[in-house]
Amino acid sequence: MLSAEDNELLVRVGAGTPMGNLFRRFWLPALLEEEIAQPDGAPVRLRLLGEDLVAFRDTLGKIGIVDAYCSHRRAGLFFGRNEECGLRCVYHGWKFDVNGNCVDVPSEPRDERQLRKLKIKAYPTKVQGGVIWVYMGNRSDAEIPAFEWSRVPFANSTVTKRLQRTNWAQAVEGGIDSAHVSFLHHHNKRVENPFGFQDSAEVWKYFEQDARPVFSVDDHDGGLLIYARRNAGPGSYYWRVTHFLLPCYTLTPPTVDPATTMTAPYYGHAWVPIDDYNCWTWSFHASPYKDYSEAEREFQAGANGIWGPVDENYHPILSLANDFGLDRDRQRKDNYTGIDGIQNQDAAIQESMGSVVDRSEEHLGRTDLAIVRFRRQMLRLARELLEGKEPVAASKGALYAVRPATVVLPVNEQVGPEFFRTREQVEVVPVE
Amino acid sequence: MLSAEDNELLVRVGAGTPMGNLFRRFWLPALLEEEIAQPDGAPVRLRLLGEDLVAFRDTLGKIGIVDAYCSHRRAGLFFGRNEECGLRCVYHGWKFDVNGNCVDVPSEPRDERQLRKLKIKAYPTKVQGGVIWVYMGNRSDAEIPAFEWSRVPFANSTVTKRLQRTNWAQAVEGGIDSAHVSFLHHHNKRVENPFGFQDSAEVWKYFEQDARPVFSVDDHDGGLLIYARRNAGPGSYYWRVTHFLLPCYTLTPPTVDPATTMTAPYYGHAWVPIDDYNCWTWSFHASPYKDYSEAEREFQAGANGIWGPVDENYHPILSLANDFGLDRDRQRKDNYTGIDGIQNQDAAIQESMGSVVDRSEEHLGRTDLAIVRFRRQMLRLARELLEGKEPVAASKGALYAVRPATVVLPVNEQVGPEFFRTREQVEVVPVE
Amino acid sequence: MLSAEDNELLVRVGAGTPMGNLFRRFWLPALLEEEIAQPDGAPVRLRLLGEDLVAFRDTLGKIGIVDAYCSHRRAGLFFGRNEECGLRCVYHGWKFDVNGNCVDVPSEPRDERQLRKLKIKAYPTKVQGGVIWVYMGNRSDAEIPAFEWSRVPFANSTVTKRLQRTNWAQAVEGGIDSAHVSFLHHHNKRVENPFGFQDSAEVWKYFEQDARPVFSVDDHDGGLLIYARRNAGPGSYYWRVTHFLLPCYTLTPPTVDPATTMTAPYYGHAWVPIDDYNCWTWSFHASPYKDYSEAEREFQAGANGIWGPVDENYHPILSLANDFGLDRDRQRKDNYTGIDGIQNQDAAIQESMGSVVDRSEEHLGRTDLAIVRFRRQMLRLARELLEGKEPVAASKGALYAVRPATVVLPVNEQVGPEFFRTREQVEVVPVE
Repeated sequence: MLSAEDNELLVRVGAGTPMGNLFRRFWLPALLEEEIAQPDGAPVRLRLLGEDLVAFRDTLGKIGIVDAYCSHRRAGLFFGRNEECGLRCVYHGWKFDVNGNCVDVPSEPRDERQLRKLKIKAYPTKVQGGVIWVYMGNRSDAEIPAFEWSRVPFANSTVTKRLQRTNWAQAVEGGIDSAHVSFLHHHNKRVENPFGFQDSAEVWKYFEQDARPVFSVDDHDGGLLIYARRNAGPGSYYWRVTHFLLPCYTLTPPTVDPATTMTAPYYGHAWVPIDDYNCWTWSFHASPYKDYSEAEREFQAGANGIWGPVDENYHPILSLANDFGLDRDRQRKDNYTGIDGIQNQDAAIQESMGSVVDRSEEHLGRTDLAIVRFRRQMLRLARELLEGKEPVAASKGALYAVRPATVVLPVNEQVGPEFFRTREQVEVVPVE
Repeated sequence: MLSAEDNELLVRVGAGTPMGNLFRRFWLPALLEEEIAQPDGAPVRLRLLGEDLVAFRDTLGKIGIVDAYCSHRRAGLFFGRNEECGLRCVYHGWKFDVNGNCVDVPSEPRDERQLRKLKIKAYPTKVQGGVIWVYMGNRSDAEIPAFEWSRVPFANSTVTKRLQRTNWAQAVEGGIDSAHVSFLHHHNKRVENPFGFQDSAEVWKYFEQDARPVFSVDDHDGGLLIYARRNAGPGSYYWRVTHFLLPCYTLTPPTVDPATTMTAPYYGHAWVPIDDYNCWTWSFHASPYKDYSEAEREFQAGANGIWGPVDENYHPILSLANDFGLDRDRQRKDNYTGIDGIQNQDAAIQESMGSVVDRSEEHLGRTDLAIVRFRRQMLRLARELLEGKEPVAASKGALYAVRPATVVLPVNEQVGPEFFRTREQVEVVPVE
Repeated sequence: MLSAEDNELLVRVGAGTPMGNLFRRFWLPALLEEEIAQPDGAPVRLRLLGEDLVAFRDTLGKIGIVDAYCSHRRAGLFFGRNEECGLRCVYHGWKFDVNGNCVDVPSEPRDERQLRKLKIKAYPTKVQGGVIWVYMGNRSDAEIPAFEWSRVPFANSTVTKRLQRTNWAQAVEGGIDSAHVSFLHHHNKRVENPFGFQDSAEVWKYFEQDARPVFSVDDHDGGLLIYARRNAGPGSYYWRVTHFLLPCYTLTPPTVDPATTMTAPYYGHAWVPIDDYNCWTWSFHASPYKDYSEAEREFQAGANGIWGPVDENYHPILSLANDFGLDRDRQRKDNYTGIDGIQNQDAAIQESMGSVVDRSEEHLGRTDLAIVRFRRQMLRLARELLEGKEPVAASKGALYAVRPATVVLPVNEQVGPEFFRTREQVEVVPVE
């Protein structure tokens, strides 16, 4: 459990809040590249960390993420004309470039000195791995996380997003909670996927036979290394190592045959706060050793893919409004929840808590160790920042060049760092 | 009128409020038995007195009404698996029995001492008269009201519920307001019903000819006895005696020939607070001397029955959103309101006041005597409870074994207690 | 920009607020006559200045605008029976005349002295120009504005209304902002209208060639005279003179050939507060020298008319929910906004600011002079009223007998008052 005060500190991310300040130290995923693909195409509305913004790609292909409102009389720039290297407000034609500079005020006498005062808020952006990243802070040394999935060729990764109607923190807590796999995702009807890396019956037996994984957690500058250990037959353990990476990422090991884990595709997630009550669930899928086919990409977007179907606004079709399609008959016979798709199962249970869970009413157990450590780390970093201490990870993208791992090892062996190495690192630094 | 302070005191029923404390002294109708009919069937969401709950029937048929959230990390138990004598949270498999005991924590090392700490809120339930009753208080002497309709054989009663989008108190005030019958329900087109007890043209003539009933009210431990007296030709009065029973029940006399009133079917209602802005309107129909046929039950559920059509969530089809189907042409020609059905007429007028009526703006008359006395009694009991004085009725179910009555009597006679006796009492205690 | 305090003062119009007091000094448009056309017809709900009201036309054709709730127990009078010179509450038959007098209490003993206490709030009404006007204040000297459009024969004017989901003030600010015509309404595809007064290509050239009009503003007792001057070829100016009239009216000059402006149709608007977050956009169209045909009226109500299509509740079909039908392709090719219809363009940009614009974040320019003066005048009058000084215009309807004007004049000439004269004034007082 958490005190009501600490819960507030953990969940609030608006401008000026301690946790909001911490988030504003990090580059964050803002949009899929496909959302503003065309130069001079339609601008899109965007809300992040409680701030209303608008994003556009200018004539030269440059991306702007700027205040949602014109500096003149606060008309909505979403309705603006994206043309000739700027977004032009349709009320009086004032025009802003991707850096928020006011570059034209056709309704007023020309006065270059005035223009500077009319600048609107604009945040730096970068594209990496099919994602438009945004930096909402004011430091010059911030670096984009060097995630493997964001640096492999397009053929080796997929990325998408969907709306989740909860605070970001309870979503992250679901992501780093390796214990729930034995339950929430249990007895899912096996679906053949086209990837060539099928779910391992062996692994699912481990989940069934040992539902009480033993957790250990290592703190580090980039976040947390979370080890969940299950029995795997006499004299051996099945290890799952999940990463929490600051401030809202997870890397989750696959459920394939552990012997193939070093070359199999794996997942990653980000839960980026829209405001205190909603977040974007980003899903990254990396396959460093095998190109995705078009069929595989399509499978991912379907009901059995990792994220489930969404509408044209990336809002999931299944939601609390329709009980996430819960089928009680299938719950009895087919799968543990009666809900289709891992992502929908996660979303259902996280949204069922309400948009901000009341952590003062919880009773945590040993398998919640990662949850406890996650909160402690986030609260510590937020408090340290108030005292002027910057979070190391924000300016050290290399910390993110890691992978999740699964492995079966004899009981007396530990999971070494070689398992977390990305393909690049493996090829540069041979495993000892 | 009521002061703004007293109005607040009257209407608020959340945990810890004075009126909420009073309600928590009484057994209350929670669900229709049909809502969780099957052992191990689907759990249902339930909100009562501002508390979010979930109800389920376990493998042995026992009924649980428990906290809506798991004690672990507050996942919604509605999504849970109802199996093997307990409701199992699908997040980590924690399981709770109908008494809220945590009986299994498969994600954690076994430790029986710990289990006791993981118990969730659970309220005692009982089934009586097709209704699942719940007790949300902490007294051991509370008794379920011994309503006649709840104790006669199934063949002799019907019961249902529908959502009303107002505070409970203005709904009760409509129920005990015998004066409005001459208006709100006036000129309803007569519909033949299949019960064999038709509306009496004579009685409706009394309503029309004397729209200014003279009220008198007796306080008693169980609530109020409300006498409305109308002229009924030379030398005689038409009496209608309505019961208000604590904390939110009414028993309404039928509009049949008064000579048949002792054997005719009669109505009862409960307005059970969902929260401060919504309540369940329960309708009970008792026919102690004549079995209901299936045709009669179907008639009750239709547009001309006492409660009107509802959807699968017991939400009425007619609502403020469609002006309760108000037909101005029929209002001019057919019936007084232009709205079909007594229950819809009542709901329309009560919801038209807003979800909490501003009683500081009222102007009460002599025919509001029952309303005045209802408020006075409820406020008094809530205040007495704050000082430790328990409401007598909460532990004396027998007080509810009464009936409404209508009778035509010579002007010098009073309505005696023999008219309020249930069939049981009549047969045990012969009328003197 | 405006301080946050002044912004609050400007926008809040509920009972007891300074700006609400000022609005309550003026007769205001309440309903179209067509909304309660029939004696004893259906009452309609009405919300003005944050007060819930109900309007009805009685048996004799008299109009009542009264409290939405019965004085007895606050049942909604919308559900009432409009009959025999009064609106009768269907709960207990209490009846109120158009002046709010309680004229019948059939549920209570007769007592004429009591009736006076049961009176409900009622506001005086008058019909002028197809509009039902209401006076929500308490002065005896208030006069209905003597707008020309409201006093010409029916054949010479049209009037309608539509919902706008913003505070009234940002709507007025759009109406008096002559600068935005060069942008927001620019490049509209020319649509032939059936009026015989087509848009002037010459005038639209002025808008295009001089997007920086020079503004001057005259304060007067009735509001503001707003002069916007554009270059119109060598040695001459194109003048547009817009009126702001207290408290929420504008008169806008047409875009026809200036030589015909004295006989051409012109527009007027009112933005009447429903509450702090919504207003009714009234549109008046006056054609003093030419009767409207039925075809012309129909054109007005269509997509290319001044107000755009609305549903049966006068809610616009295009709204923020559907991005006002914004078509990005047409925005690039056809018109400046990609939105059809001048009124929709105005509504889109005003609603895009949010329901109450944050004026503390603005950066006003020279072309915002009228906006600045409007705010200053309204704030001054609201403050003066707090000190007991009444607004002159409220009791001087004749101040509203003015017209907007456009004219091309040599650079050394001014727009004289003869241009603002109504037909009546012109015919009575020949232009010197």
